[in-house]
Amino acid sequence: MIKAGIVGATGYAGAELARLLTQHPQAELAAASSVSFTGKKLSDVYPAYRQLCDIVCTTQAEVVEKSDVVFAALPHGLSQELAADCFSKGKALIDLGADFRLKNEADYEKWYGGTFFYPELHKQAVYGLPELFREQIRGKKIVANPGCFTTAVPLALAPAVLNDLIEPAGIVADCKSGVTGAGRSLTQNTHFAELNEGFSAYKVANHRHNPEMEQTLRLLSGQNVTITFVPHLLPVSRGILATCYARLKSGVTPGQIRAAYEKQYAEEFFIRLLPQGKTADIKNVRLSNFCDISLHLDLHSSMLIAVSAIDNMGKGAAGQAVQNMNLLFGFDEKTGLTALPPAF
Amino acid sequence: MIKAGIVGATGYAGAELARLLTQHPQAELAAASSVSFTGKKLSDVYPAYRQLCDIVCTTQAEVVEKSDVVFAALPHGLSQELAADCFSKGKALIDLGADFRLKNEADYEKWYGGTFFYPELHKQAVYGLPELFREQIRGKKIVANPGCFTTAVPLALAPAVLNDLIEPAGIVADCKSGVTGAGRSLTQNTHFAELNEGFSAYKVANHRHNPEMEQTLRLLSGQNVTITFVPHLLPVSRGILATCYARLKSGVTPGQIRAAYEKQYAEEFFIRLLPQGKTADIKNVRLSNFCDISLHLDLHSSMLIAVSAIDNMGKGAAGQAVQNMNLLFGFDEKTGLTALPPAF
Amino acid sequence: MIKAGIVGATGYAGAELARLLTQHPQAELAAASSVSFTGKKLSDVYPAYRQLCDIVCTTQAEVVEKSDVVFAALPHGLSQELAADCFSKGKALIDLGADFRLKNEADYEKWYGGTFFYPELHKQAVYGLPELFREQIRGKKIVANPGCFTTAVPLALAPAVLNDLIEPAGIVADCKSGVTGAGRSLTQNTHFAELNEGFSAYKVANHRHNPEMEQTLRLLSGQNVTITFVPHLLPVSRGILATCYARLKSGVTPGQIRAAYEKQYAEEFFIRLLPQGKTADIKNVRLSNFCDISLHLDLHSSMLIAVSAIDNMGKGAAGQAVQNMNLLFGFDEKTGLTALPPAF
Amino acid sequence: MIKAGIVGATGYAGAELARLLTQHPQAELAAASSVSFTGKKLSDVYPAYRQLCDIVCTTQAEVVEKSDVVFAALPHGLSQELAADCFSKGKALIDLGADFRLKNEADYEKWYGGTFFYPELHKQAVYGLPELFREQIRGKKIVANPGCFTTAVPLALAPAVLNDLIEPAGIVADCKSGVTGAGRSLTQNTHFAELNEGFSAYKVANHRHNPEMEQTLRLLSGQNVTITFVPHLLPVSRGILATCYARLKSGVTPGQIRAAYEKQYAEEFFIRLLPQGKTADIKNVRLSNFCDISLHLDLHSSMLIAVSAIDNMGKGAAGQAVQNMNLLFGFDEKTGLTALPPAF
Repeated sequence: MIKAGIVGATGYAGAELARLLTQHPQAELAAASSVSFTGKKLSDVYPAYRQLCDIVCTTQAEVVEKSDVVFAALPHGLSQELAADCFSKGKALIDLGADFRLKNEADYEKWYGGTFFYPELHKQAVYGLPELFREQIRGKKIVANPGCFTTAVPLALAPAVLNDLIEPAGIVADCKSGVTGAGRSLTQNTHFAELNEGFSAYKVANHRHNPEMEQTLRLLSGQNVTITFVPHLLPVSRGILATCYARLKSGVTPGQIRAAYEKQYAEEFFIRLLPQGKTADIKNVRLSNFCDISLHLDLHSSMLIAVSAIDNMGKGAAGQAVQNMNLLFGFDEKTGLTALPPAF
Repeated sequence: MIKAGIVGATGYAGAELARLLTQHPQAELAAASSVSFTGKKLSDVYPAYRQLCDIVCTTQAEVVEKSDVVFAALPHGLSQELAADCFSKGKALIDLGADFRLKNEADYEKWYGGTFFYPELHKQAVYGLPELFREQIRGKKIVANPGCFTTAVPLALAPAVLNDLIEPAGIVADCKSGVTGAGRSLTQNTHFAELNEGFSAYKVANHRHNPEMEQTLRLLSGQNVTITFVPHLLPVSRGILATCYARLKSGVTPGQIRAAYEKQYAEEFFIRLLPQGKTADIKNVRLSNFCDISLHLDLHSSMLIAVSAIDNMGKGAAGQAVQNMNLLFGFDEKTGLTALPPAF
Repeated sequence: MIKAGIVGATGYAGAELARLLTQHPQAELAAASSVSFTGKKLSDVYPAYRQLCDIVCTTQAEVVEKSDVVFAALPHGLSQELAADCFSKGKALIDLGADFRLKNEADYEKWYGGTFFYPELHKQAVYGLPELFREQIRGKKIVANPGCFTTAVPLALAPAVLNDLIEPAGIVADCKSGVTGAGRSLTQNTHFAELNEGFSAYKVANHRHNPEMEQTLRLLSGQNVTITFVPHLLPVSRGILATCYARLKSGVTPGQIRAAYEKQYAEEFFIRLLPQGKTADIKNVRLSNFCDISLHLDLHSSMLIAVSAIDNMGKGAAGQAVQNMNLLFGFDEKTGLTALPPAF
Repeated sequence: MIKAGIVGATGYAGAELARLLTQHPQAELAAASSVSFTGKKLSDVYPAYRQLCDIVCTTQAEVVEKSDVVFAALPHGLSQELAADCFSKGKALIDLGADFRLKNEADYEKWYGGTFFYPELHKQAVYGLPELFREQIRGKKIVANPGCFTTAVPLALAPAVLNDLIEPAGIVADCKSGVTGAGRSLTQNTHFAELNEGFSAYKVANHRHNPEMEQTLRLLSGQNVTITFVPHLLPVSRGILATCYARLKSGVTPGQIRAAYEKQYAEEFFIRLLPQGKTADIKNVRLSNFCDISLHLDLHSSMLIAVSAIDNMGKGAAGQAVQNMNLLFGFDEKTGLTALPPAF
């Protein structure tokens, strides 16, 4: 039984982590911090948790002290100091923020306006997308947990890119996200009466996850991949659907496509490659760590359409973070992540 | 490890039962039947279940044969024969339908247009609302699992009725139900475009759960209780909120009210009596077996307002059925029912 | 063509007023003010209005100067000075806030914590519920436009109260409101991810509209009426459904009930008394000034159930305000208010 | 005052037509037919219409007889006979179905499995997308009113195609539709509990609107245009958002793009080309005949992203049909179509 702590437990990702860790058979939720709610029970903020998760929010320092592994669910820029602190004390850090995701400091500066305070730590950090980088994750102490879009899009495209089946330039990733992706902070566009019955794109071709998803596919394949990425905001609470379009390389057959995906993901518990004719739906992955993928071809324009669905709070945040913890500590990777998603 | 079977597994209550039983540590989902989907996997009907619950639907007969306990999730009228079959074979039956809920055949005929085929079986049956009838449930073979409204309303009112704090006549139960309560069959008023952004009452003062909730409180208290019951349909998937209004008896104090509820429910894990000032919300009980209750007083009209919230598919159907199974088989009553409800 | 102005045009009620006035054949939207958006177009705040209502927000003073009638859509407490200003300049004021609704200063102080700055103005003010107080409204200069619940509940109960058909004490008004009723200001409980799939009561038996609805029925009938009023928040944008319960007086027949409503509302265009067997639904009054009313009886408990549905932004706010303007200026009362509500 | 009739008035498009025609100042809704509801009032099917549109549904024959212009809102295949009947009687027909949209009988057979019964009528028919084919529409007797996706996508792309600014092959149209697009007939995937909180693609690269949108751009530009079209189903009632991706031709500048759209749509009342930095949202066009278009560039991949938003029942069906009627009869094209869309 390891001791896990959450820094930033009252945001949505933090709260979802608390839910998963409370039920994890090999980890104990030892401490949780919140700047806004110090001294309050987590179940005062989220009354759904009453009686089952009444942990009292404390300080970041106490979380570090009490934990073997610290999950950071913080606004970007705040994880670096925490990482240094954890590292010096020999604690593992799984960062759900963006501070350690981009390998290149120039990219981080361009997209987040920040700098690498501890370049050495960045070398220690690993990008925590287990299905693509599993072997590099084991034994690490700092894990950069991917963002939600940056989980859904690379998982949808990796087998095609790795097997050289699609043109690496001009890919389109048309993504739709549930509103928890925007966090718990109040904004006009997530006010119920403004979002309800609405639907639009945002940060068109200008979202911070764009360089991150390209980096992942470049690191995997060794070639530059260019993705036009447009996120949209869905009037639902959870879920990301990524509809990815890529031009097939000349001569590629439908059979090759499916075979590549089947081979790549044959042993991946959390990836459900749907049978021909089925289509991924965010509804089927809610409250789970699954990534459902469906494959489609538009033969009249030689286009692969790969659709992936995840729960942005599950595989897109807290679920994947727990999966990374399982990897770090040598647990079965599925531990605590096998609850059946609800049918409705 | 007991063997559990579901007759009618592809309706909403059946599917929710399958989800709970798949994860139950002391029961195994041994068989599931469906008239419409015989030979198909349950996960073909509910793709969320893929990989974790791929059981193939079979016949009712096979379910009975393979199970120690049979859950019936059938339209009313169809459970009596099944109950007779189970009873003769020594199998327990937990009926989520209405066939065994009303004690009085005249009531059953009036509200359901049916008759008691096996009056002897009705005497064997027990009404499965554990918080109110726990001792009578243990050891039984036929359990009539209450309806959703008939769980929410009696739990909200029982302590007040039992302690003679409210007038037993003229009670109002204004209830609001999520749409899964209407089942999976297609109807115009549950068509998305018709229900979305809509809200109305239905079967006003003419719903079959009305005599059932009155029966429960009468059996408990020994006095006639009259409830004006109006259900409304909410544009949400899950949840029932029951706002119950009852005139305080003369001289009753706020302290007496709260004390009665605290005493009655002190040991009840699944009832969360909320602190003064909080209000029950269906959001907080989603996907759980909890019943949240909040108490309010309108002193200017001497009215008790007791609000209860349940998940109509959880405590209002499948969750409570599993709770009854736990009771029947001597398991800890909470077994398989302690998953933390999601915060959002 | 009269000139109408809106003070507080960028809140929800103000924006709905702008929509109605833009389309009104006998009024021109002459000016609109906003503290937060002065100098901006209304269509910058509400892009739906682009091209059809691009009026630039100005100051309150300019609105008064340019208008024959001023609509105030302000937080309570801010309308009194405005009323004095309008009154001194001979302009009509229709106040959508609460400052002039309660006749009794003690009530105003108790529920709103304010005082009557200009008691003389309060004597000049009329309560603008045309179906109940039409004759008193004509020719007035200050109209207190009723709140949303305080429109829905009295309209549902007035014929029964006026004809002495129900007990005036112990009435229950269980109300459900769409979220625009909570305004455009950001709050946690109207954040999409928190309200979606949720439903609960709020301000139980402690809402400011309680004394106002009782006042209306008392003024009408001359007798004290006591209402237990519980509002709930619906996850929809628009609409109020009021389910009202009242004990029938001894000997009252169903026929008397219906006859009383039919007589009272026979000439009321905006009240649609539904035929026996139909049930009021907020969906059917969206974007309209209608109040749909359905009548039901629970004979086993001698209870009248009167259900009314309005659009909280229409008949519950801006629509009724325009209806009052029509009355003040001698226009046909329906002018600008006959757009067919959408079917879906 | 012309007489307008609707064949198929109780489906969603028919009902929306009835709403618009009831309020049209130069047309009168003379007759409406329905196979399922003959003899019933339209307001029995859609109670929102009560009192303002209580027309009784009659037969198709009577509609033709009583009308100067007939709107057909029928399943495909049923309009051809009706067209022949109208044509022979000198009545105008505006067909909201697909029978006259495809110019090429082979395409019609491939995608709809039907044949052209009256090839001569097809030569008489015009494709009713006024912003692109206005001059050809005037004076015609048979108008094929475009489908919803086939309005949104060509309007988003036409200026770029016509001015040779984008590659005509490999275009992606990722579209999202509100659920009324699926009609009033009951289906499992539009059952509230199944669609709510869900989101997925359907008929991926296999939807009947694909050849139609390519035909439109081909007819306009004289060059073959290939579009990969993927529709998705949104859990909202109304609206289509089309996010269209096209590779810029070499050397094309952002200024050229915007200039082309501004020029093309300068005089188009129903097209609102949004300013730089704004993004089209289905919320802003609800219940209107507007098409909002926003333009975005992804310079790092030389991709134009043109986003259009329409109300699928407005500009995507009934609104556009009324616009076509206005054109046919020489009315101002905006007549009856200038109601301000609601802000929320």
